Amino acid sequence: MKVDGQPYRSIWVDPDGSTVRVIDQTRLPWAFETAALRTLDDAAHAIRAMLVRGAPLIGATAAYGLCLAARADASLPGLERAAALLNATRPTAVNLAWALARMMARLRGCGERERVETAYAEAARIADEDAAQCEAIGRHGAALIAAAAGARPGRVNLLTHCNAGWLATVDWGTALAPIYVAHERGLDVHVWVDETRPRNQGAALTAWELGRHGVPHTVIADNAGGHLMQHGRVDLAIVGADRVAANGDVANKIGTYLKALAAHDNGVPFHVAVPSSTIDWSLASGRDIPIEERSGQEVAIVSGRTESGAIAAVRITPETSPTANPAFDVTPARLVSGLVTERGCCAATRAGLRALFPDAAHAEPA
Amino acid sequence: MKVDGQPYRSIWVDPDGSTVRVIDQTRLPWAFETAALRTLDDAAHAIRAMLVRGAPLIGATAAYGLCLAARADASLPGLERAAALLNATRPTAVNLAWALARMMARLRGCGERERVETAYAEAARIADEDAAQCEAIGRHGAALIAAAAGARPGRVNLLTHCNAGWLATVDWGTALAPIYVAHERGLDVHVWVDETRPRNQGAALTAWELGRHGVPHTVIADNAGGHLMQHGRVDLAIVGADRVAANGDVANKIGTYLKALAAHDNGVPFHVAVPSSTIDWSLASGRDIPIEERSGQEVAIVSGRTESGAIAAVRITPETSPTANPAFDVTPARLVSGLVTERGCCAATRAGLRALFPDAAHAEPA
Repeated sequence: MKVDGQPYRSIWVDPDGSTVRVIDQTRLPWAFETAALRTLDDAAHAIRAMLVRGAPLIGATAAYGLCLAARADASLPGLERAAALLNATRPTAVNLAWALARMMARLRGCGERERVETAYAEAARIADEDAAQCEAIGRHGAALIAAAAGARPGRVNLLTHCNAGWLATVDWGTALAPIYVAHERGLDVHVWVDETRPRNQGAALTAWELGRHGVPHTVIADNAGGHLMQHGRVDLAIVGADRVAANGDVANKIGTYLKALAAHDNGVPFHVAVPSSTIDWSLASGRDIPIEERSGQEVAIVSGRTESGAIAAVRITPETSPTANPAFDVTPARLVSGLVTERGCCAATRAGLRALFPDAAHAEPA
Repeated sequence: MKVDGQPYRSIWVDPDGSTVRVIDQTRLPWAFETAALRTLDDAAHAIRAMLVRGAPLIGATAAYGLCLAARADASLPGLERAAALLNATRPTAVNLAWALARMMARLRGCGERERVETAYAEAARIADEDAAQCEAIGRHGAALIAAAAGARPGRVNLLTHCNAGWLATVDWGTALAPIYVAHERGLDVHVWVDETRPRNQGAALTAWELGRHGVPHTVIADNAGGHLMQHGRVDLAIVGADRVAANGDVANKIGTYLKALAAHDNGVPFHVAVPSSTIDWSLASGRDIPIEERSGQEVAIVSGRTESGAIAAVRITPETSPTANPAFDVTPARLVSGLVTERGCCAATRAGLRALFPDAAHAEPA
């Protein structure tokens, strides 16, 4: 998408044909800086230190990490070591292992002298496919927004939680893709952006990317969404997901469940936008999804910019008060109006998913 | 309640018999400092600059403000001017006008030479009555906690939102009073404290007062409560209220509605603790309660303590992103398991309230 009128992806290859370039997301929203990745270690560091985040972007970065590794050592043992190192950077990101396996399968099938070129071509395909998949999600989801817009005159108000935008993918995003498509088609959209405590991905990343692309938006405390829905100020809620179970249950950033409850209570459609790779056909229900408990320091300490322009961290809780930080929650399928995938929209049910992905049914648990 | 073993109220008269002493709540949780109020202007400043907050404590501070005014000028015109000045400090706090009216009625009825003594005695009665009312709420609410404790072995886990503790009243608090009583009776209670964005009253004040009194607690992001309820980790939710309508609808800090929805969805009792002065018999339903829209800066800027110990404010949103900040929401009575008042508990319904307060029925709208 665009940053102040200039089109960007979240990862690309420099004109020299080898240097991989990413946006340093740890500096957002305060500074728009790119980082050059020239070695395997650069790529591993970018993932580990969260210069890049979001499962699809992590996958693409790992794929390009293997390209950089191949430039130094294109032997198969060398590439296997590189893949193992990259795979250990963020052990829970499903796209990471998937992208590395796909790259290695391709590289094992060609001679050592072709491997650098083959690697860059395959990494580019992974990136392009992700962008195309997200754009397709955007087209399908934009129809839902257009329907909401058609229902009454004036601006369409959307609400989103966390960051499922182009910064989390290679381009377009998942939850934000429909919003970008609707905006580009000239629909008058406005987005309520949950700040998304405790890591503030909404306040920092979603607000930044919507603002830089020119999409009207307003940042709110996570507490405010229910009240806005009660007063008819949200036409449609749309979020991404970390994992969707085969019955349509959705694991996403902590707090998603509360917004789904409020949407349901107020008759506001609540949609979840995901590429099909996020659907875990082996999980019968969301009850089986393990929830990561992250450091309580994320609740106690808030980072931001002081008036003088310095980035500072401040503690907001008493030092003697414990903090807890479950990172995700599971929204039961009964609260989800629909899933938006690259193949189209479907009900958040086993039957709905099966109808859209008949080829995936074999992976389902008995 | 206690601060590190020492009993405190949130407002008291120094041994000199005239200086009024309050806790400077703007310095919490980082420093426990008291402020001496020696003049009418000191009292007005304490309310205006939010050294004191919480409707009952604001009322008591205003009452003592009239005592300080009487020491300088006990004439009726002088006292009327003082009352008008105090009344303008926080125009929306209902207890402020109520306490001033009660004080002025008392002072008009006595001679000028008795007014200082009469004023201090009446202000002390207002403070004592508030403390007694809150203690009664505590006793009635503790029975609910004991019932939850009796239902299964081990610790009772409570969840609260915002600060409705002794810092918001003269002593005991409203939502926290039952927790203090249960704790003093030896029940093993633990409190999940919503940080309560955007002003962080939970993280700053509730965590501080529970911790200093010795009540086990854990601060969580506002997003986390639904997930904890889904996993059986909350036995009872209890909050205060800014206003309760005659049908049991509850206006309270923004985000209360989302927790009530989650409690309802998971069969967790959701109680609202209020002195009867918070019940607005003239309001047929919560739909009629106006919701204050506060400055968006409260969402954009977070205050806390840096590692070096300085208090600093940091911006967490891009400067070009608008913010919105509705301060309260209305929880429909259907989501409220019960109201806890100084007279006992009742259903959050017109009939429930009428049965407990038959004397107030005449104030109801037709």
